[in-house]
Amino acid sequence: MKAFMDKDFLLSTETAQKLFHEYAEVMPVLDYHCHINPQEIAEDRKFENITQVWLGGDHYKWRAMRSNGVEERYITGDAPDREKFQKWAETLELAVGNPLFHWSHLELQRFFDYHGVLNGETAEEVWNLCNAKLQEEGFRARNLIRRSAVTLICTTDDPADDLRWHKQIAEDTSFEVKVLPAWRPDKAMNIEKPDYTEYLKKLGEAAEMTIASFADLKEALKKRMAFFDEMGCKASDHGLEYMMHVPETEENLEKIFSKRLSGEALTKEEELKFKTAFMVFVGQQYARLGWVMQLHYGCKRDNNTAMYQKLGPDTGFDCINNHTPSAQLADFLDELAMGDSLPKTIVYSLNPNDDESIGTIIGCFQNSDAVGKIQQGSGWWFNDNKTGMMKQMTSLANLGLLGNFVGMLTDSRSFLSYPRHEYFRRILCELVGGWVENGEFPYEERMLKRLIQGISYNNAVRYFGFPLEQK
Amino acid sequence: MKAFMDKDFLLSTETAQKLFHEYAEVMPVLDYHCHINPQEIAEDRKFENITQVWLGGDHYKWRAMRSNGVEERYITGDAPDREKFQKWAETLELAVGNPLFHWSHLELQRFFDYHGVLNGETAEEVWNLCNAKLQEEGFRARNLIRRSAVTLICTTDDPADDLRWHKQIAEDTSFEVKVLPAWRPDKAMNIEKPDYTEYLKKLGEAAEMTIASFADLKEALKKRMAFFDEMGCKASDHGLEYMMHVPETEENLEKIFSKRLSGEALTKEEELKFKTAFMVFVGQQYARLGWVMQLHYGCKRDNNTAMYQKLGPDTGFDCINNHTPSAQLADFLDELAMGDSLPKTIVYSLNPNDDESIGTIIGCFQNSDAVGKIQQGSGWWFNDNKTGMMKQMTSLANLGLLGNFVGMLTDSRSFLSYPRHEYFRRILCELVGGWVENGEFPYEERMLKRLIQGISYNNAVRYFGFPLEQK
Amino acid sequence: MKAFMDKDFLLSTETAQKLFHEYAEVMPVLDYHCHINPQEIAEDRKFENITQVWLGGDHYKWRAMRSNGVEERYITGDAPDREKFQKWAETLELAVGNPLFHWSHLELQRFFDYHGVLNGETAEEVWNLCNAKLQEEGFRARNLIRRSAVTLICTTDDPADDLRWHKQIAEDTSFEVKVLPAWRPDKAMNIEKPDYTEYLKKLGEAAEMTIASFADLKEALKKRMAFFDEMGCKASDHGLEYMMHVPETEENLEKIFSKRLSGEALTKEEELKFKTAFMVFVGQQYARLGWVMQLHYGCKRDNNTAMYQKLGPDTGFDCINNHTPSAQLADFLDELAMGDSLPKTIVYSLNPNDDESIGTIIGCFQNSDAVGKIQQGSGWWFNDNKTGMMKQMTSLANLGLLGNFVGMLTDSRSFLSYPRHEYFRRILCELVGGWVENGEFPYEERMLKRLIQGISYNNAVRYFGFPLEQK
Repeated sequence: MKAFMDKDFLLSTETAQKLFHEYAEVMPVLDYHCHINPQEIAEDRKFENITQVWLGGDHYKWRAMRSNGVEERYITGDAPDREKFQKWAETLELAVGNPLFHWSHLELQRFFDYHGVLNGETAEEVWNLCNAKLQEEGFRARNLIRRSAVTLICTTDDPADDLRWHKQIAEDTSFEVKVLPAWRPDKAMNIEKPDYTEYLKKLGEAAEMTIASFADLKEALKKRMAFFDEMGCKASDHGLEYMMHVPETEENLEKIFSKRLSGEALTKEEELKFKTAFMVFVGQQYARLGWVMQLHYGCKRDNNTAMYQKLGPDTGFDCINNHTPSAQLADFLDELAMGDSLPKTIVYSLNPNDDESIGTIIGCFQNSDAVGKIQQGSGWWFNDNKTGMMKQMTSLANLGLLGNFVGMLTDSRSFLSYPRHEYFRRILCELVGGWVENGEFPYEERMLKRLIQGISYNNAVRYFGFPLEQK
Repeated sequence: MKAFMDKDFLLSTETAQKLFHEYAEVMPVLDYHCHINPQEIAEDRKFENITQVWLGGDHYKWRAMRSNGVEERYITGDAPDREKFQKWAETLELAVGNPLFHWSHLELQRFFDYHGVLNGETAEEVWNLCNAKLQEEGFRARNLIRRSAVTLICTTDDPADDLRWHKQIAEDTSFEVKVLPAWRPDKAMNIEKPDYTEYLKKLGEAAEMTIASFADLKEALKKRMAFFDEMGCKASDHGLEYMMHVPETEENLEKIFSKRLSGEALTKEEELKFKTAFMVFVGQQYARLGWVMQLHYGCKRDNNTAMYQKLGPDTGFDCINNHTPSAQLADFLDELAMGDSLPKTIVYSLNPNDDESIGTIIGCFQNSDAVGKIQQGSGWWFNDNKTGMMKQMTSLANLGLLGNFVGMLTDSRSFLSYPRHEYFRRILCELVGGWVENGEFPYEERMLKRLIQGISYNNAVRYFGFPLEQK
Repeated sequence: MKAFMDKDFLLSTETAQKLFHEYAEVMPVLDYHCHINPQEIAEDRKFENITQVWLGGDHYKWRAMRSNGVEERYITGDAPDREKFQKWAETLELAVGNPLFHWSHLELQRFFDYHGVLNGETAEEVWNLCNAKLQEEGFRARNLIRRSAVTLICTTDDPADDLRWHKQIAEDTSFEVKVLPAWRPDKAMNIEKPDYTEYLKKLGEAAEMTIASFADLKEALKKRMAFFDEMGCKASDHGLEYMMHVPETEENLEKIFSKRLSGEALTKEEELKFKTAFMVFVGQQYARLGWVMQLHYGCKRDNNTAMYQKLGPDTGFDCINNHTPSAQLADFLDELAMGDSLPKTIVYSLNPNDDESIGTIIGCFQNSDAVGKIQQGSGWWFNDNKTGMMKQMTSLANLGLLGNFVGMLTDSRSFLSYPRHEYFRRILCELVGGWVENGEFPYEERMLKRLIQGISYNNAVRYFGFPLEQK
């Protein structure tokens, strides 16, 4: 029996261990997509206790607690932090096989040097240990980032955002890690939302213009993109129910936009037409700017209306949408490619059944613009676990070139989530090491080093064009 | 090489073996969903020969024989039982990797103490051995149940059923195993069936009223639910093509119902609207009564019309329906949750691709009403094999709390099917034991015992609220 | 660590090794579906260099090169063959886990006796070695086939084809391998294509009649089928986006056909109705002739319009279509079965998520017409790798009788692809051997030999009714 989560955690063969310890572990972390609040970096936030860090905004953990029949007051309510932590610890021991079990213990090991097992009986000990450490300087936001060997972070930002915190961080020479904005224009696309017209006003103000037509909207977005680009932005991001492709003429699109501005409700088809045109437009701009387009889809959000009304979005009530037509994704990419304006693109579906169809679609749009121009993103959200990552990488390997994969991102709101990169690299090394041990790939040090270090770090540096060196 | 199906069958590690032999094997069996005929328990049926037991009603075996080119007369026809058994034995040896191979040999081992391999050459020996044993008292229905350490069985019953056999069993103090009805109102929902109005008459008679409106139907169902509840019912069950959600007003629903009563054909949309309203209504009642709602969907039935005309339903001509929109399942559960009338629910899809979407949907509706209030059901029917159960449990573990899973059921028509619980437990122990051996979960006896015994038995006792003790 | 791709490649247990070396390896190859050009066999083609053989028409390799950012001139363009080969070798080392890596090295081992690793550094050595060998007589088309122990090949042929090369090969007594045509009437079905009416003229000429109605088309097809049948054809093949079933009356079908002949565009529904009727008609004919119907679906073709305009079809721009409704497949088979005219059928979906639904559908239509009358085809195209084949065989084993599976085909354009049969057999033996080692199937030599040799060769001989002996 292997020891519980020791240095060879998830590495079952000698080759896997070697690949991880010699090649993967030594690489820095490039976190090209996360939901960290840049203000917390700018202000170098300090945390009072482990409940704040772990349960303050982590809807993964909230879901697990609800699945354990825990009352909401211990989850998002006003119960004392110590009691919330107890409920969490009691829940965790039932989470056998869940990535939360591994992430939590990796974080306890890497940041707090705690190597025991967190459960109801050890909660008190862990509470005291963590809270004492959290008072130290080394546990402020910036030091947590530094200790994780992070070289660059991309946050997730609205086009109307003034990026003041990014500016402040960039100007602060005492912090060497790059913190770049990433462009996430969901609010500008979600024409069906009740507050859409309000949002347009806000966006118009940011762009110093009035948005009275789809043409205006595009103009405003271009202005904001120029600003983001100046601020070092290299990546965009989109949250989509699925990647739609329902073409319409410019004239009719303006009619749809006008209809919405006048307060009328759109049909589902009108919505899809508008969103298609929106996505085609921004895709063209990304191609022009050299940005990467990230498509995150296959998610149905806010499914529990009663809880949404109480807690708002991103509180643990989202699910996989299994209507994700591969044909429309292919047609969308084709429309951009036809106009020679398909940007570098990373496709992520929340539906793991899409791995293979995505793997075959990306292969249709590769060319010499970039190595691995169209990528399948790493196991995302509900797939961000050993099963999901193994499946995504195996599928990618079967259908394309795993060697050019840009690898992992945290997608997290927490400064303690960087061990997810370690988790990913262990799984990567277990997979590739297994192939080598099994005689399916040769034991060639040059080739293996290049593969592992590429996927761990170097490929992302090359792909996004960040101001970093490959290692 | 491990010996063929010995005591450590499916248990490849020491920890898996320990978990099974120390924790799982000793637990009784709670079979909360099956298709046993209660009359056969009441009358303590005796079986003449192994063909009657095995091939009398098992459409899994029939399918395998048809796949082997066996003529129908040896399957459901009038060939002599010995010849049918021969054809079955000759088929079985081609079923490498099929659960029928394991189930058959587990049954031969556990009930008949036969540890050889059944094939065309050994058929005669097995035929003689089994038939001799079947003459013994220990092989009557009740003793087969007792020998399997069963504490409670839920059958599957129509709302119009008078439950006379359940009454008779309950009153018979010589039989200590609880045999409870479960509510399966498919016939009351399937408004598109040619015999629907006839069924309404039958249901009306059982409820002592006339059903002339949807409101009447609901009233009749409430009366019958009250009767089932008195009889100890704790669980309902639904067979659905997929979980639909197409809301409609009460007024229009009554129009649809009237249209059907008048003999007019409904459109597909009308059918879906009616079924949605039906399901919302019964869900509300289950919540009120504290019953568990079981949703079985993803099945397209009676696909071979010619054979259906000869043999009727449940004869081996059903398949997976891969149109199972996750969005509608989520919206259906949301409608119930909004009205604070979502009952405890177990979701089963016949489409294994739904594992992950279901895993994410159930997480949206958990709360402190119950531990693991919304469950993903065990690998069902075509998924009731090592692959399907491993996949279901791995998905459940990744996305929720495996520790709260209510575990296995036989879903069977046979008194010899209880080893399927053993089969499940072996797979469970192999999975969890593998994680422990691999350092992914700590070797903590308290935690492991609780997990394994919970999933094997105790969680179901707690969840359904049966009059049983946890062990 | 196992040596890289040695004699026990993919065989991790003793039983797997024994099954492969004693039972599987010795069997001949029956390649019942490929895209070999019969002219190249008739003329016994010689190849100038390895780039011609490997990169001349293999869009799998082209895709990989595009994924590596290689310029199109090194792929399908006019770069010198040596430079193309270099780019390919540099790409291959990034293809860890990809079947191309294994296929390429198997081909280098089996045909060229090269046991090293092909990459950018060894490309020169491999180029020289292969090109020298390709000048030998043993490397002409016919000898490549002979060296692979092939007994029979089915090509893929249009109904209008005169099969002149098949005739020539059949008459040439110096070549002992059977080369039979297979019927692929996609062009006669694809009524939506711009050149459909032109194709009808060509088909009419071949059938010596004018096609002015759907009835005429059917007549013409019958004539051509009679000709193909005379030429030894035993198998048909269809490429479909998905298996549709939208019934329509004969009268309306003629209207749809007339509309198309008159140059009007059809609606999508009209297209589907026509195609349904077309498929039902040909299915009936196949049943009459005793041919096997192969349904290949789940593919969306020519997704990159710009590249399609430059390079045409089958150049590496196809993807999985994930809209593959199981209900329509079941209904299509049912319509044929109702009329007692369902032929032997092999179903392949490009969408690996369909494995289980297909496994359950084929089980609905088995009968005593043939052993394993309805088959699920081997992992196809994007699934033709260890993952896809393991998944397909495991699913087939779970849901039916793996023992009756007709096994592998190359689906290839190349004379070097026969090691894909070896690859498949290794995976088959690894799977079955693993079950035996794990105590899940008995170590019974008679049963195991029959299983492995059946799936490797004998089942296909029996199933198609080719003029061959079982071994």
